[in-house]
Amino acid sequence: MESYIIYLIPVLGVFGLLVMALKSAWVSRQEAGDENMVELATYIADGAMAFLKAEWKILSYFAVIAAILLAWSGTMVETSDWVIAISFLIGAVLSATAGYFGMKIATKANVRTTQAARTSLTHALKVSFTGGTVMGLGVAGLAVFGIGTLFIVFYQMYVVSVGGAAHGLEMEKAIEVLAGFSLGAESIALFARVGGGIYTKAADVGADLVGKVEAGIPEDDVRNPATIADNVGDNVGDVAGMGADLFGSYVATILATMVLGREISVVDRFDGLAPILLPMLIAGFGIVFSIIGCAMVRIKNDDGDVQKALNTGNWTSVILTVIASFFVVRWMLPETMELRGYEFTNMGVFYAILVGSIVGALMSMITEYYTAMGKGPVNSIIQQSETGHATNIIGGLSVGMESTVLPIIVLAAGIYSSHYFAGLYGVAIAASGMMATTAMQLAIDAFGPIADNAGGIAEMSGLPEEVRGRTDILDAVGNTTAATGKGFAIASAALTALALFAAFVGIAGIDSIDIYKANVLAGLFVGGMIPFIFSSLAIAAVGRAAMEMVKEVRRQFKEIAGIMEYKAKPEYGRCVEISTQASIKEMIAPGAIALISPVIVGFAFGPEVLGGMLAGITVSGVLMGMFQNNSGGAWDNAKKSFEKGVEISGVMQYKGSEPHKASVTGDTVGDPFKDTSGPSMNILIKLTSIVSLIIAPHIAITGASHGELDKHDAAKVVSQEAPEHHDGATSLD
Amino acid sequence: MESYIIYLIPVLGVFGLLVMALKSAWVSRQEAGDENMVELATYIADGAMAFLKAEWKILSYFAVIAAILLAWSGTMVETSDWVIAISFLIGAVLSATAGYFGMKIATKANVRTTQAARTSLTHALKVSFTGGTVMGLGVAGLAVFGIGTLFIVFYQMYVVSVGGAAHGLEMEKAIEVLAGFSLGAESIALFARVGGGIYTKAADVGADLVGKVEAGIPEDDVRNPATIADNVGDNVGDVAGMGADLFGSYVATILATMVLGREISVVDRFDGLAPILLPMLIAGFGIVFSIIGCAMVRIKNDDGDVQKALNTGNWTSVILTVIASFFVVRWMLPETMELRGYEFTNMGVFYAILVGSIVGALMSMITEYYTAMGKGPVNSIIQQSETGHATNIIGGLSVGMESTVLPIIVLAAGIYSSHYFAGLYGVAIAASGMMATTAMQLAIDAFGPIADNAGGIAEMSGLPEEVRGRTDILDAVGNTTAATGKGFAIASAALTALALFAAFVGIAGIDSIDIYKANVLAGLFVGGMIPFIFSSLAIAAVGRAAMEMVKEVRRQFKEIAGIMEYKAKPEYGRCVEISTQASIKEMIAPGAIALISPVIVGFAFGPEVLGGMLAGITVSGVLMGMFQNNSGGAWDNAKKSFEKGVEISGVMQYKGSEPHKASVTGDTVGDPFKDTSGPSMNILIKLTSIVSLIIAPHIAITGASHGELDKHDAAKVVSQEAPEHHDGATSLD
Repeated sequence: MESYIIYLIPVLGVFGLLVMALKSAWVSRQEAGDENMVELATYIADGAMAFLKAEWKILSYFAVIAAILLAWSGTMVETSDWVIAISFLIGAVLSATAGYFGMKIATKANVRTTQAARTSLTHALKVSFTGGTVMGLGVAGLAVFGIGTLFIVFYQMYVVSVGGAAHGLEMEKAIEVLAGFSLGAESIALFARVGGGIYTKAADVGADLVGKVEAGIPEDDVRNPATIADNVGDNVGDVAGMGADLFGSYVATILATMVLGREISVVDRFDGLAPILLPMLIAGFGIVFSIIGCAMVRIKNDDGDVQKALNTGNWTSVILTVIASFFVVRWMLPETMELRGYEFTNMGVFYAILVGSIVGALMSMITEYYTAMGKGPVNSIIQQSETGHATNIIGGLSVGMESTVLPIIVLAAGIYSSHYFAGLYGVAIAASGMMATTAMQLAIDAFGPIADNAGGIAEMSGLPEEVRGRTDILDAVGNTTAATGKGFAIASAALTALALFAAFVGIAGIDSIDIYKANVLAGLFVGGMIPFIFSSLAIAAVGRAAMEMVKEVRRQFKEIAGIMEYKAKPEYGRCVEISTQASIKEMIAPGAIALISPVIVGFAFGPEVLGGMLAGITVSGVLMGMFQNNSGGAWDNAKKSFEKGVEISGVMQYKGSEPHKASVTGDTVGDPFKDTSGPSMNILIKLTSIVSLIIAPHIAITGASHGELDKHDAAKVVSQEAPEHHDGATSLD
Repeated sequence: MESYIIYLIPVLGVFGLLVMALKSAWVSRQEAGDENMVELATYIADGAMAFLKAEWKILSYFAVIAAILLAWSGTMVETSDWVIAISFLIGAVLSATAGYFGMKIATKANVRTTQAARTSLTHALKVSFTGGTVMGLGVAGLAVFGIGTLFIVFYQMYVVSVGGAAHGLEMEKAIEVLAGFSLGAESIALFARVGGGIYTKAADVGADLVGKVEAGIPEDDVRNPATIADNVGDNVGDVAGMGADLFGSYVATILATMVLGREISVVDRFDGLAPILLPMLIAGFGIVFSIIGCAMVRIKNDDGDVQKALNTGNWTSVILTVIASFFVVRWMLPETMELRGYEFTNMGVFYAILVGSIVGALMSMITEYYTAMGKGPVNSIIQQSETGHATNIIGGLSVGMESTVLPIIVLAAGIYSSHYFAGLYGVAIAASGMMATTAMQLAIDAFGPIADNAGGIAEMSGLPEEVRGRTDILDAVGNTTAATGKGFAIASAALTALALFAAFVGIAGIDSIDIYKANVLAGLFVGGMIPFIFSSLAIAAVGRAAMEMVKEVRRQFKEIAGIMEYKAKPEYGRCVEISTQASIKEMIAPGAIALISPVIVGFAFGPEVLGGMLAGITVSGVLMGMFQNNSGGAWDNAKKSFEKGVEISGVMQYKGSEPHKASVTGDTVGDPFKDTSGPSMNILIKLTSIVSLIIAPHIAITGASHGELDKHDAAKVVSQEAPEHHDGATSLD
């Protein structure tokens, strides 16, 4: 009996948190620069904290109400409990904490990166990437520790204490209560991502429209009243929002695999828990390999290739995780298993993990192709900037739409083959395998906004150009990793959503979701529409908030004499407040749609129609996410290409030229696409799936909360009886 | 035996064509204006003809190859025949003819409308709307005549001659061969719509970018070398393309209802043909009521409300059709029927038709709200033009995405309720009811581009401003009707696609499309992506072709001395040729995707995965169609609003202001959205469904080409045997 393994999981989480603490202390020890820099960094840190406080205040109301509803509903069905509310609150608090950790370190690392960039690129990379590592480990550590500990508690409480089985109703209850943790994490993630996304882009677009375009001052100019808000935005959107987002994704992926794992009856050395423990254990090992991978990210001197260093670290952790999975799978799982009538082997499970890793890698590569400077798609947008704003926009929209093709084919092949190797468990474990190196992935993602902020502080404090030059190198790499990170996130979300979808089908007591039925098809249509209205609300919110920002900046330029001559300081606080208020207000409607629409459809039309709706949300959400992320990324880099100069129709064009102005328009349109609505799509599809999973016992087809098992049994009975009957008939002849 | 009714159908078609001929002769008799006007009109007519000829040449190669493949495949299965190739060719030729009729009359009516506008608005409306009527009646008359006649022929050939039954395998063969007609019509429609759409927008965007923006000359200025191409574009895209499009839609809708009607076993006074004949008969009556409706479109004097006149005519024909359907349904159908186990009444069928009409009307109203001047959505775009190009674009994208919400809810409710009233036949007949007044709908749609052209000719011939003022009134109304017409088209396409989908399921021998299966879900993903790549190709094609146009116009301005001083004539022909060549070349890739992807998926992965793909294409296509059509329409009218002046932040802004320039960008982006890719979506979803229907017998689950019947029977056998067995068991006790 090797059930000690269950305790290894939270230990691995704690290990991640310890390493995080060490790295965090290291960052804090670095020099923070001169007084001016510290003052600016304090403005940014205070603004970010103010936003988080305002956001948490609203979210705490939401969390309390949701918890009460959950507690009440938990008592209504046999397979849940009021404790789900506690589980939910812990998930919500840990998700918020993950965002907070990230933001705290990012607002320390930014100015220290600036200071480090005064000496060398090597050092600047080290500081900014260590900041990213702190965030990655914080998120992964909290997630693994949280889900691992809660699983132990609920397993003892609901299963062991009543002498229940690892695959019985008791375990179903334990995992349903655990699903509350994921719901809490994912709902906070949604609000954090949307709120943070609106904040950062309202400030960014607002600052650019008046500062760059009207007043003709550069980005991050200290005279621009919105510049602090813009830099705060990087922290609350790209850091805190993303931290909460990936925390939620990570937990949801593990949970979905556990839900399906419960249905696999095995006799093993782990009290029959192996298929349930496997995703948590892989995630735990993933933390260790991410730490190793992070240690590989370094450049020897200032001529070193930053992107290559990141790739080396990333591949190291991915390959180590895949190799470890091979041994873990062989060690833990029996040779053959069965889930809902589909038989597969432990090697099949390993192949599914491999498929997940390959899909993740391909997804990142394809995304990079569509959004990187110097490649065909970005070049085509540059060429189309020659004839003005409109053709630049047409070019970007076209690139974004085209960029869905290969990822969808990869994804479809991934679904097909992971299912082939290990049934629905294969689809889920593929996502778990892909997400195992979340800590590494997030370290790479989070270093981008830190570098971006560092550049902002360099600019605002008037440091020498070479400093900004070094941070710009990091920032440019950060733009690419931001895009590839999103490709990765959406692919893992799609697989996770499918796993949750399968889990939902099981608990809801249905055995098919037949779109040939008119009502299910109607559900599919409505589901397909949800990502459109969600995106519309998010984009429109940015537009509105940016316009408020523009008016405020114009007012300050007009009313505060001497700003332009550096004689008077702008009122940064007002702009911070506008972004904060607008984003808090505007995040509510899209969030409510995601949370409430599955509940309404589920209770009004039943689980099969809800299943249709989930499929619609997933497909349309994945497509809209890719389209918007990649359009936005491509526009951004098309604009950036003008900094070094680009050749259009034989003429070199630089910053300030007409084609460059057109490319700025594209970039601005792309901002809410790639940083507000696009990245919210992956949370949207997971959150609606989790909500459905939570309500599944309530809307289950009556008397068949284990429909899939009953029906299988029924099918067996029929197939056993039919021949008998037949035999009887023939023997009568 | 009242089987004479079968001959009434083609007679109604011929009646429509006769009225068309009379109206056409009336238009020809109107004055064509002075020499200058006639010369310009001739340029336009010649350019349009040149395009059609070039397009037909390419399409004839395609048609011959497709026909050979079809003939070959038709001989491979029992339920088809090589004659399907003939059927296909007739469909293709009639579709092209429908486009040709429309274009021929439009290029006559345009200059005559200009001439009429010299005297009064009343007369200008009469000429332009009569032109539209000719087109509407031509399309509907040809469709009803074609399908009615072919049905008689195939019914005699495959059913009567062998003494077959109205609902047996023989009839399945007759209707499968008839499906070739629809395939021919719809594939020509796709190429015509895409080719025409690329043509018109390449010319329009190209003409605007150099003419309006760079050279600062007004739209339709005779000095602009691309202006003739632009006006030709209105005819080949908005007229010929739309004619072929609606011809295809009309035929597909009727056919889908017939396919499902075949499965309804009834004993009636029509040789059991009533459910098959019904959709054709309603379409036939719809022609008569459309003629009545068209006669109601008039204004008393020049202060009359043109939109109101159109609405009166439209409502008259819709209400008369609904009333007539009530009597026809009661007269023809038995009191109760059954389709695939779903029982319904003849009144249920009537209610489904009513649902279809209501869905169509609501769709038009919602679309109008989102795209009309003076309403909230367009105003929000106007306000967002204040802060520049980017916020205008963000506003339009947001409006387009939001505009999918209500139509999707209406559509889902329509699917749900029409199915509730009359099962799958209800969904199909709802679409048929909606499409019955196609002649009227098309008359309203087609008068817009005629008025647009009339305005162009007025401008180019330098007629007094009051003439242009009158054509502008008509043109503005035409913009709204163009948008609402698209809303109507996409709704009917969605219902038709569902009916075809249901028909496909029957013929392919499957009895569910279960997205809970991994491979079907993978199909759903791939299907969802098709409208994205299709749109991307179409939009990019416009971008590329427009840039070629821009370069040619710039070249002419530079190389031909004296253009600007009216001393030298530009080479209109070169621009016409660029648009022609580009559109012919660029229409191939998207067309090929639509035709080939269902074939590949169907043969490689079987009918259920193909079913998943079709559902994905339909949902995603409907959403992308609405999004693009409505964004484009809203941008267009936001721009137009500046002509009269709009108030932004308390200041009146007019043409030439900065916000107006931003709105021009939005309009230009919207051009390919609303006139190229958006309106192609409805053909895409129908065409892929028809292709699937045609290949269904080839990929049917082996030995079960009537799977749904077999399975029903099997289910019955089981349920009958099981109790017996049980009884036996208990009696043994």
